[in-house]
Amino acid sequence: MPETESVTEIMAMLALQLGIILFAVRFFGRMVKRVGIPQVLGELLAGVVIGPYALGGLHFPGFPQGVFPLGAGTLAVSTELYAFASIASIILLFASGLETDIGLFLRYSLAGGVIGIGGVIFSFAFGDLVGVFFIPGSTFMSPQNLFLGILCTATSVGITARILSDQKKMDSPEGVTILAAAVFDDVLGIIALAVVLGVVAVITGHGVAGADSLNGLLILAIAGKAFGIWLGFTALGLVFSKHIANFLKIFKHSYDFSILALGIALLLAGVFEKQGLAMIIGAYIAGLSLSKTEIAPVIQERIHGLYEFFVPVFFAVMGMMVNVKEIMAPPVLIFGALYTVAAILSKVIGCGGPALLLGFNGRGALRIGTGMVPRGEVALIIAGIGLASGILDQKIFGVVILMTLVTTLAAPPLLSATLRIPGTGTRKPVKGDESASTTWEFISDEIADLVVDTLLKDLKNEGFYVQMLNIDEGLSQARKDDISLSITEEESNVTIETARTDMPFVKTAVYEVILRLNDSIQKLKDSSDPRQMKKGLLDKDGRTSADLLSLVTPQCVSLDLKGETKDAIIAELVEILSVQNKLLNKEAALIDVLDREKTMSTGMQHGIALPHAKTSGVSDLAVAVGIKKEGIDFESADGEKSRVFILLLSPRKTSGPHIQFLAAIGTVLKDDDVRKALIEAQSKEKVVSLLQKGKAG
Amino acid sequence: MPETESVTEIMAMLALQLGIILFAVRFFGRMVKRVGIPQVLGELLAGVVIGPYALGGLHFPGFPQGVFPLGAGTLAVSTELYAFASIASIILLFASGLETDIGLFLRYSLAGGVIGIGGVIFSFAFGDLVGVFFIPGSTFMSPQNLFLGILCTATSVGITARILSDQKKMDSPEGVTILAAAVFDDVLGIIALAVVLGVVAVITGHGVAGADSLNGLLILAIAGKAFGIWLGFTALGLVFSKHIANFLKIFKHSYDFSILALGIALLLAGVFEKQGLAMIIGAYIAGLSLSKTEIAPVIQERIHGLYEFFVPVFFAVMGMMVNVKEIMAPPVLIFGALYTVAAILSKVIGCGGPALLLGFNGRGALRIGTGMVPRGEVALIIAGIGLASGILDQKIFGVVILMTLVTTLAAPPLLSATLRIPGTGTRKPVKGDESASTTWEFISDEIADLVVDTLLKDLKNEGFYVQMLNIDEGLSQARKDDISLSITEEESNVTIETARTDMPFVKTAVYEVILRLNDSIQKLKDSSDPRQMKKGLLDKDGRTSADLLSLVTPQCVSLDLKGETKDAIIAELVEILSVQNKLLNKEAALIDVLDREKTMSTGMQHGIALPHAKTSGVSDLAVAVGIKKEGIDFESADGEKSRVFILLLSPRKTSGPHIQFLAAIGTVLKDDDVRKALIEAQSKEKVVSLLQKGKAG
Repeated sequence: MPETESVTEIMAMLALQLGIILFAVRFFGRMVKRVGIPQVLGELLAGVVIGPYALGGLHFPGFPQGVFPLGAGTLAVSTELYAFASIASIILLFASGLETDIGLFLRYSLAGGVIGIGGVIFSFAFGDLVGVFFIPGSTFMSPQNLFLGILCTATSVGITARILSDQKKMDSPEGVTILAAAVFDDVLGIIALAVVLGVVAVITGHGVAGADSLNGLLILAIAGKAFGIWLGFTALGLVFSKHIANFLKIFKHSYDFSILALGIALLLAGVFEKQGLAMIIGAYIAGLSLSKTEIAPVIQERIHGLYEFFVPVFFAVMGMMVNVKEIMAPPVLIFGALYTVAAILSKVIGCGGPALLLGFNGRGALRIGTGMVPRGEVALIIAGIGLASGILDQKIFGVVILMTLVTTLAAPPLLSATLRIPGTGTRKPVKGDESASTTWEFISDEIADLVVDTLLKDLKNEGFYVQMLNIDEGLSQARKDDISLSITEEESNVTIETARTDMPFVKTAVYEVILRLNDSIQKLKDSSDPRQMKKGLLDKDGRTSADLLSLVTPQCVSLDLKGETKDAIIAELVEILSVQNKLLNKEAALIDVLDREKTMSTGMQHGIALPHAKTSGVSDLAVAVGIKKEGIDFESADGEKSRVFILLLSPRKTSGPHIQFLAAIGTVLKDDDVRKALIEAQSKEKVVSLLQKGKAG
Repeated sequence: MPETESVTEIMAMLALQLGIILFAVRFFGRMVKRVGIPQVLGELLAGVVIGPYALGGLHFPGFPQGVFPLGAGTLAVSTELYAFASIASIILLFASGLETDIGLFLRYSLAGGVIGIGGVIFSFAFGDLVGVFFIPGSTFMSPQNLFLGILCTATSVGITARILSDQKKMDSPEGVTILAAAVFDDVLGIIALAVVLGVVAVITGHGVAGADSLNGLLILAIAGKAFGIWLGFTALGLVFSKHIANFLKIFKHSYDFSILALGIALLLAGVFEKQGLAMIIGAYIAGLSLSKTEIAPVIQERIHGLYEFFVPVFFAVMGMMVNVKEIMAPPVLIFGALYTVAAILSKVIGCGGPALLLGFNGRGALRIGTGMVPRGEVALIIAGIGLASGILDQKIFGVVILMTLVTTLAAPPLLSATLRIPGTGTRKPVKGDESASTTWEFISDEIADLVVDTLLKDLKNEGFYVQMLNIDEGLSQARKDDISLSITEEESNVTIETARTDMPFVKTAVYEVILRLNDSIQKLKDSSDPRQMKKGLLDKDGRTSADLLSLVTPQCVSLDLKGETKDAIIAELVEILSVQNKLLNKEAALIDVLDREKTMSTGMQHGIALPHAKTSGVSDLAVAVGIKKEGIDFESADGEKSRVFILLLSPRKTSGPHIQFLAAIGTVLKDDDVRKALIEAQSKEKVVSLLQKGKAG
């Protein structure tokens, strides 16, 4: 434990390190994303570069051990920083569980299940066997080999989904199957991890390097127990999910119950680790349990900031654990290369094989197998667990990182190549395979977000299984029976792709969403009717500020406006300001004032009109006053003709008393005598003095 | 440093502890809030109760040291948990700085400045002197006494603002002055902390208990240097704030740049601590620098989830540091009582005195002094720093916690009492003191939020200084010159209070906000015109699902509808379902269908109408079909009369194929022959078979 004096020192280092990590991950993430590499690899790379084995280990004045000093024990970083990475892995798996609506999913994809299972079994076996081959004296049941097996299982299809979407293949039978299999892969990976950890705990507890002293039955029993714990908690979580959600909702504020949901994940993570299973299993089950409740999307949104803060820290810390020098040794590189090849082949064979039996042809099976190749965050988390618990050494850790990097980098070109092979991937021709896509353009990103969110909610209500594939890039997929839609949100555009025959359904769904949004908007308008509000604006008791009203000058007054229409009057007032050199851009000013009128006429009661706008056409507040004794129709609030016109223009950017001026002038004009005197005024000076003196006028 | 095997153990404990803390703080926070005590005290109390000196120290199976084992050194908790509390304090002060738009503020309140300074000087002196009196052999310059002084300075006016608002006194001269003084108090407290830490570092570096060996000039020089560092960084931050904001905005996503802004706070915190100043000073300056940029509100919103996760952990950890047994000793209690009295008196005298010189009478001065009494989070953070660095011992730490608790609990009744004294608080009568309040009711909390956010932005553009007083309770204040408004948001109601003479200004401002919102809503409607969309819905190539269409039965078909109006036709169709016992609640069903029609008629082209609704009036999907050969006006999309009517009712809660059915029936009816045959059909069975067979009909 650190000494008294150094607690503040430790915290200062932690703050610095976190600050540096936050910048490094975003910098590297951006760089690699530009060349089409997934952001997470950039974050990992950031960790390698700034970590203790590279830049972070350099000595600086004030940092005798470097900014990221090598931690003691098996950790390359301080336990405090590692603590942030650990909590990050809990948040990551909690969020991942929250997205997996397994109950609904099971109903729809047998093929996904079989292919997912095939991939997990083959990759586990291949990964483990590479370890048996390379690590002298080890067996299939050696802890590090079991870890090499489990590390090989977890597919991460974010990058695959992106490629499928780019090539408009997300709704192809192969695309749908890959995404379905990936969900099974997630769940199976967690179960397999539970089983392996249970077995490893017993093996290491026995003090044996291998499992030679354990017979097959005992191992089965242990595995069964671990699986039982997983199943028990998952079942309990799903059965009581409604009750848990109701309990959480006692805390009305969405931030409160969302963070408490994360609290459940933390508790379950702690309990699982205490039971010899991994924290992430508990976190995943907590997420899975809440996934089918109606608060799941709220929780996802509310913890998004936490996710964005923590998760990149996790990847960076994993990168920091990579000892580049150790990896560069030829034996490690050979080990890594073979492990990577095994990781690729195992998915191609393990997923492609079952695909062949399920109606896909060779092309289709190859596409599916290739699509399942990339490994990602879960492999990294498990590798971190292995390293921290001492089961994996730095070399094997490096091998795993290499495998993760290469599979993620290799999958996109491989998958693209298989997709370019002409012909369908299924043996039976697909009915209505012809696909269609429709794009809706909305006025802003926020509106597009709102439409997509509401649509996804509606689709869930229709019984669809909705999968968010890539939060950053706004890619979702919805499936029900043999209907499948992919929804892409790019800034303010929403594109939905589906089979030609399902387009009417999609259009009807979007139509209903827009109708509903329109309706709630209409209700807002009704509840705060601007027309009614306008009538309450003029008020005799308001404040009239002499400073403000001194802006009115005789040069900008016209006693006899010529215009007969609203637009003509406004143009005349703008012209007055233009002649007096008060405008930067006459056209811009005129357009902005007319735009404001379109929203709602500025004709008030009692013959007053206050056309106004914020515009780039002026650099300072500018006021023009015009009188037209006969009056014209200015669409005023009381239907009376308008006779006194005051035009107010304010610069758009700088802050200034725009509304204050409007309120002040309104107060002055509310006075009957002032208004009458204004209309009868014989000189411009009289007009100015009437407006400035207010009631005294 | 922990050993290899225990890293995972440490992380499991951390996860458990964080999970327990998240629940405990929300539970205690809720409880105390109910009896009107600020939530933060509940969070502190939660820490005391579950901490190592109370429940957390109890031994359990699996937890030989308790769930919160006592940490080594001066920390009562593990360094990992303390690390979360430290990062929390950085987030807290960063957010606090972000809210302080000091540049704009300085322009408007001389009185606030003078009163804030008075309070800081007096409370520093009083707090320090209590230490001199109680701690044998200590002097005014002893580090722990300097800390007792600085701990006494930081006012926390959240609770004061609540009371002023409840009693409609927020816009009184006293109210405005208290809130203004509190902003100065924040800034001055940070400066004073910098100076004290600089001096303490030199004193402890000299190895002397007091400062006897340091002459006054040297101390001044040190203080000057610390102040200089503060001023330098603050000035740099403010000067380059635009550049920093522009740099951050390179990262387009708001989460990215918000978290990077926090990254700057972490970096500056680390740098300041390395320089012997506190982390929170750096964090506060980072916030202050960004406070006047336009991304400040975005950052505040984006890091809100982090704030809600971390900050209560901080208060709980501070509570855990409290050794209840130590505090309960009579000498500590007496020390605490005197320190608390000094803390109260020093603000009453230090703030009330200058108030007397600035135009307030005795009543007003007393109100202002009392309003400045509560201490809060900053005192706790500084106490934590003192404890962690070994300058404060557990007893003095307990004394500070007592003071924080008592001042926060005592201030509300004291302030209420002074407010009840009749009469104004100023010597010169205030013009237009009469205050007015207006409440707007919106249809939902979200809309109210949107209106308030936009209004506050507009007010800033008008040159107002906007202060968020109590985020949880939606209380804000805006000031400019002698105008002041308080804005309270309670669920969907927004109430604004201000002087009678400024009400026209307020109404104009709200009016302009609502106009603008209405306008952007209109644009959405225009860009996705439902009327146009409707015409694209019917599509011959759509999918017709036999399963779905089997819902149509002869019993629910009418070949000859009687109704002559839209409403009559709908009522007739609902009646058919009612007679067939398909409805749970006929009235509800009818109302929901008519409501949906109000949004937009379901009359399509080609004489088809598809009235439909989700309603609690049915428990299963129900369909009625009606024909009216002559046709009636159903406000159809093409203006033609409608002759074929299909009513669809779906249960509101359960998920089902509502939209799928609409799309399928639309596809069937798009076929000209089917439609003609339907209208001419002689039997109900014929209608059903036509609808079910689709194109084949």
